[in-house]
Amino acid sequence: MALQYGPLSFYRSHMLSTTPLSTTPRTALTRAKDRARTDRADLHAVLDAGLICHLGVVIDGCPRVVPTAYGRIGETLYLHGSTGATSLRAAGEVCVTVTHVDGVVYARSAFHQSVNYRSAMIYGTARVVTDPEEKTAGLRALTEQLAPGQWDVARPPYRKELAQTTVLALPLAEASVKVRQGPPREEEEDLALPVWAGVLPLRVGWGDPQPDPAVPPGVPVPSHVAWR
Amino acid sequence: MALQYGPLSFYRSHMLSTTPLSTTPRTALTRAKDRARTDRADLHAVLDAGLICHLGVVIDGCPRVVPTAYGRIGETLYLHGSTGATSLRAAGEVCVTVTHVDGVVYARSAFHQSVNYRSAMIYGTARVVTDPEEKTAGLRALTEQLAPGQWDVARPPYRKELAQTTVLALPLAEASVKVRQGPPREEEEDLALPVWAGVLPLRVGWGDPQPDPAVPPGVPVPSHVAWR
Repeated sequence: MALQYGPLSFYRSHMLSTTPLSTTPRTALTRAKDRARTDRADLHAVLDAGLICHLGVVIDGCPRVVPTAYGRIGETLYLHGSTGATSLRAAGEVCVTVTHVDGVVYARSAFHQSVNYRSAMIYGTARVVTDPEEKTAGLRALTEQLAPGQWDVARPPYRKELAQTTVLALPLAEASVKVRQGPPREEEEDLALPVWAGVLPLRVGWGDPQPDPAVPPGVPVPSHVAWR
Repeated sequence: MALQYGPLSFYRSHMLSTTPLSTTPRTALTRAKDRARTDRADLHAVLDAGLICHLGVVIDGCPRVVPTAYGRIGETLYLHGSTGATSLRAAGEVCVTVTHVDGVVYARSAFHQSVNYRSAMIYGTARVVTDPEEKTAGLRALTEQLAPGQWDVARPPYRKELAQTTVLALPLAEASVKVRQGPPREEEEDLALPVWAGVLPLRVGWGDPQPDPAVPPGVPVPSHVAWR
């Protein structure tokens, strides 16, 4: 229990930026430009609402896309994994994408079938976190993203567990956000077709908590789980 | 409307394979090997249950991960996009990942926090589909994946719409499937800790259909949408 969650000084180095999102060649939308969001708050909202991201790395010249957990502190995204993970050892230049599917768009024409979604893509060079304080803070952020409140009640990582874990930090410097919502956009001449069009919303929610078999009967589900 | 959905001969070239999934260096799991599934039916199940995939490509040596729709016919995955899409023009060697998050695993130790999920990763060289019959079949499979039944009632693609669309085919030849389910796995010494542990299941379902504003009042929601 030597490594504890860091003091406030750590957060001071992660002040929120108010600059709008970058428009580098790879983050500028070339089509459907009306779907772009350039407010940094939109980036944070997409990230904060997610559970996992898809991490893209290049290994031997080939792409690899790995679903993995993440956490955010200010303008830094944290990723983690086993020190032996190929995808983390290969990290460096990465692309992290977080996507929420909000519904299926039924159009009157096959060409205009679509999906309502919110997505964020972040490009950059991932840095291996070596500072113990930042490493622990990054891991806490990862747990907060998935299971808010659990870090504060769970046994903190042992030294050897920390040694088995690689934590990567990715600055939210080069990023794009795309959002599509609403009904289908159709050709004018298709509007009179006798075809139902609209949106079938996708609903995501939590089911009933399932206690681990080793939890003694009668132990209540804690509020940070039950009230989610 | 010259290009119609193809005859059965097309399907005969897409017979289902019964060979187990490949174990190439990049699809063999190096850790948590008990999460691997090698039955081809598991791959199909993960793919068929999804709405979108994350497509990984390499552009100028850097990874890019794009959320996009897909469809499956037998042992071939189809992707599509605008002919101008950078990610499709750069395609060639790709990695396609489909992930379902089934729940959050609350553990008694920070180190063992986890996620229940099903995921599939497919590696390979994407082929640009040029045959009109296969192109239309691929687009139909894409619509069936997102909006089953809508292709049969919607206006088929115009020639010019097909010309604006690139369809890629990716063989399900080199693929891996990972599944994690069930309660946390913990250190023996942690089981007595007074920390709630278990699984909070994630539930995904459909909301009420939202008709497009141009749908005349009183038009019923068709069965292929309402019964989903």
